[in-house]
Amino acid sequence: MEIIAIAAISLDGLITRHAQEGTGFASPEDGQFFRQALQTFDCSLMGRRTYKVSRERILANLSPERLRIVRTHHPEVFAADALQERLEFTSAPLSEILDDLRARGKRRCAVLGGTSIYSECLQNNWMDELWVTLEPLGFGSGKRLLEGELSVRFSLKSLEHLSPDTLLLKYKLLRDAVR
Amino acid sequence: MEIIAIAAISLDGLITRHAQEGTGFASPEDGQFFRQALQTFDCSLMGRRTYKVSRERILANLSPERLRIVRTHHPEVFAADALQERLEFTSAPLSEILDDLRARGKRRCAVLGGTSIYSECLQNNWMDELWVTLEPLGFGSGKRLLEGELSVRFSLKSLEHLSPDTLLLKYKLLRDAVR
Repeated sequence: MEIIAIAAISLDGLITRHAQEGTGFASPEDGQFFRQALQTFDCSLMGRRTYKVSRERILANLSPERLRIVRTHHPEVFAADALQERLEFTSAPLSEILDDLRARGKRRCAVLGGTSIYSECLQNNWMDELWVTLEPLGFGSGKRLLEGELSVRFSLKSLEHLSPDTLLLKYKLLRDAVR
Repeated sequence: MEIIAIAAISLDGLITRHAQEGTGFASPEDGQFFRQALQTFDCSLMGRRTYKVSRERILANLSPERLRIVRTHHPEVFAADALQERLEFTSAPLSEILDDLRARGKRRCAVLGGTSIYSECLQNNWMDELWVTLEPLGFGSGKRLLEGELSVRFSLKSLEHLSPDTLLLKYKLLRDAVR
């Protein structure tokens, strides 16, 4: 199963603007790219906070074509939202979640954040690509794209202008790099 | 006087790798670009830590063509390094340092970091452009490019490949943007 992380970031590598949850800072062009890109995945994985800020949109767009998995310490809190094979909540370790997706025949998983899921995937080599939308913004404070003590290297696979000022950069994780 | 900040960053917006001071993580191509770019400036400004990691190179390359200013709380510590019009140390506020450079007829100032100088320049609108070399690396921890509660917007002026995986992005600060 191919695992691709997708994130919109500021120039200073933040995935939220100050304490505001979500990607409200991202350009409309990123939103359009993101919605289209998601259609090419048969499953996606996100943390509780990422789910909460996108909950309405997610619930309005559930489909059997893409299984959404939300990792949370308290799946029971979200029992009313859960729908087998479409939107599932789990407190399982990330390795088990990914194994389970593979066992269910999933081929392409979008990792949608936040910080801890992105970082855990990188730390463990569970990421094939990282797609970042680089917005022309500086925040100074906010949630970081990555945390911990990582030392990962990518190769730049493609570069696209989503708008004159916004870049979509697709990186491939180099597994053999010194880590 | 034109003020241009120059930085090499990881994908996650860090200017150091973990606790290692300096830009040792940056590619040789960035080093080459940086040295050539500096030649187009008649002055540069940096903080104490930035000076300390580059001290040897700076001392070996002093020239009357570029005045280096180092901001430090304790200029007296560096008295032995100081050389009027070539390498000066000051504890003056940033606004005074910039005014003084203008009064001395300087036309183009390179702001070389670190975090607090970059951020203070942005916070106060004392930056015309930000040039970032985006290295294909993820660190998780290290010094951030920016700090504080900024809300600045740039326009992308140019994009250049320094190597297949390393991008040089030159941004112009949009002064009229909502801050």
